[in-house]
Amino acid sequence: MTKLRIFVDFIAEAEVMEILRQGTAGHELVFPKRPVASILAKAEPDPGLVDADVAFGQPDPNAVEQARGLKWIHISTSSITRYDHPEFRELVARRNIPVSNSARVYQESCAVHVLSFMLAQARKLPLALVTRSASGTPPWNALRTSVRTLRGETALILGYGAIGKQLVELLRPFEMKVIGFRRKSRGDEEVPVITAEKLAHTLSMADHVIDILPDSAETKHFFNAARFKLLKPGAVFYNIGRGATVEQQALADALGSGRLTAAWLDVTEPEPLPDDHPLRAAPNCFVTPHIAGGHVGESQTLVRHFLGNLQRFVRNEPLLDRVM
Amino acid sequence: MTKLRIFVDFIAEAEVMEILRQGTAGHELVFPKRPVASILAKAEPDPGLVDADVAFGQPDPNAVEQARGLKWIHISTSSITRYDHPEFRELVARRNIPVSNSARVYQESCAVHVLSFMLAQARKLPLALVTRSASGTPPWNALRTSVRTLRGETALILGYGAIGKQLVELLRPFEMKVIGFRRKSRGDEEVPVITAEKLAHTLSMADHVIDILPDSAETKHFFNAARFKLLKPGAVFYNIGRGATVEQQALADALGSGRLTAAWLDVTEPEPLPDDHPLRAAPNCFVTPHIAGGHVGESQTLVRHFLGNLQRFVRNEPLLDRVM
Repeated sequence: MTKLRIFVDFIAEAEVMEILRQGTAGHELVFPKRPVASILAKAEPDPGLVDADVAFGQPDPNAVEQARGLKWIHISTSSITRYDHPEFRELVARRNIPVSNSARVYQESCAVHVLSFMLAQARKLPLALVTRSASGTPPWNALRTSVRTLRGETALILGYGAIGKQLVELLRPFEMKVIGFRRKSRGDEEVPVITAEKLAHTLSMADHVIDILPDSAETKHFFNAARFKLLKPGAVFYNIGRGATVEQQALADALGSGRLTAAWLDVTEPEPLPDDHPLRAAPNCFVTPHIAGGHVGESQTLVRHFLGNLQRFVRNEPLLDRVM
Repeated sequence: MTKLRIFVDFIAEAEVMEILRQGTAGHELVFPKRPVASILAKAEPDPGLVDADVAFGQPDPNAVEQARGLKWIHISTSSITRYDHPEFRELVARRNIPVSNSARVYQESCAVHVLSFMLAQARKLPLALVTRSASGTPPWNALRTSVRTLRGETALILGYGAIGKQLVELLRPFEMKVIGFRRKSRGDEEVPVITAEKLAHTLSMADHVIDILPDSAETKHFFNAARFKLLKPGAVFYNIGRGATVEQQALADALGSGRLTAAWLDVTEPEPLPDDHPLRAAPNCFVTPHIAGGHVGESQTLVRHFLGNLQRFVRNEPLLDRVM
């Protein structure tokens, strides 16, 4: 077996780092010479990366050019925004450096988080948990007869991919109508997938609009005032993708006008939202602090995913979650 | 077709009553002569019931003896506590009066409500929705790495029946270990079912303890201090059955001691709980006001369920949700 120099700019609890050490026995682990968060990090590449065969974590994309021996990059997040630009893509393509990410570490947790939002809204938990109304009173009747089961409702998942697929599995018992939206349909998706030309029509039919769009120039403020105006009156909007995909004042307006019943957001811009932000003032806007991908044992899952891919890399097998 | 006199002490919106009228065309609908909620109602049977062939709603069990022509009772709730005593059972058995209830009207909604509780707890929504912690700070790390996906966890459903079965369907994609508890296993359940002798052991293993027990002399304060002490440290307790099945001070103690991580209750005793009740003071106790069975269109579903059973009754076919 070829001994690899693996540059790791990823930090976790001691027992997880021990799993990493054991799983990479026979190879050499190299940690950053400088603290990962140092502001100097952008000045020049970390010497550990320059000599590495493999990089695991969030290696500086500008330093990859100088890492002459680099043969594989495994990114420790699901987002690849930091790497997703033409120069970097051209560089790794030219040098045949496969790039994989950690999407599957987060996809189940993200899908579960969306469902927790959908059910909290369907059962009106924010209201129900604070009400003191007695059975049979008008406010109680209004609450009890307005909660929902999701059955038969329509959900549109924007940025249909691994998380969307997992969400479809979770939603299967609810017998909803689920539609995916992505730039290009691959044709093998589990649900009908629409592309740009049918978006306006589909937005106007969906009871649940689920934004899992990645962050890119194309998706910047994808949900603007014009798009929110297309939504079905009474729809619920969810965002567990990226905050930048939403024009937040337009969202606040859509919530204020009553067109949207509610918004459930795990991502915002900035994070956390300041206390005086219009979305904080909207009583029908619910925000969690970018935890959708989180779960007990997350860093261990992340390391195990890398180790699984390391075995694949060594055996020259296709990498999981390869993105470039 | 035999023309039936159908006594209806059930009130709903005008359009739902119209569905009832249309669906019973050819029969005679008889409404209570006295307001349903009158305190006089217990004094003597409503004349409408005395002459009826069928009763739909919540007919006074003490008046059934005098309703000489009664051939079928359809109860408009899932609970049959009011009717579930030996004298009444003996009476309807002796006179061959089938009794059906409205269980399936509520079962899906109840199961969805439980799942909304389970996911709100797994994703720590009550905390996450109010936190303002920035990404990377210690409280944020603590939150993000402690939320869960339910995968692989164990759930015990007490009072395993129609709601439990529906919940099992909803939980299937989560790949949990689900165990049912009921007085007597029928052997055809979708999950392993335990009875009394294995209860203590199973309570000590379950991460999620879901109380759907009906109200009866046998289940009164089923969850008392001794049973709460059996639970696995860190377990979560849910009740969407009946408030009387729980000794609430013992629950408050179990929450206060930290043995239970949280309790999610849709039923309490009394309802609503007074503001100075110990469970109101527990920060890890979450209460909704007996709405688990509620859903948009509930009264319409209820009437349609009765009408479906009416067709079965007329054709002499087995009734759905027959309970006696």
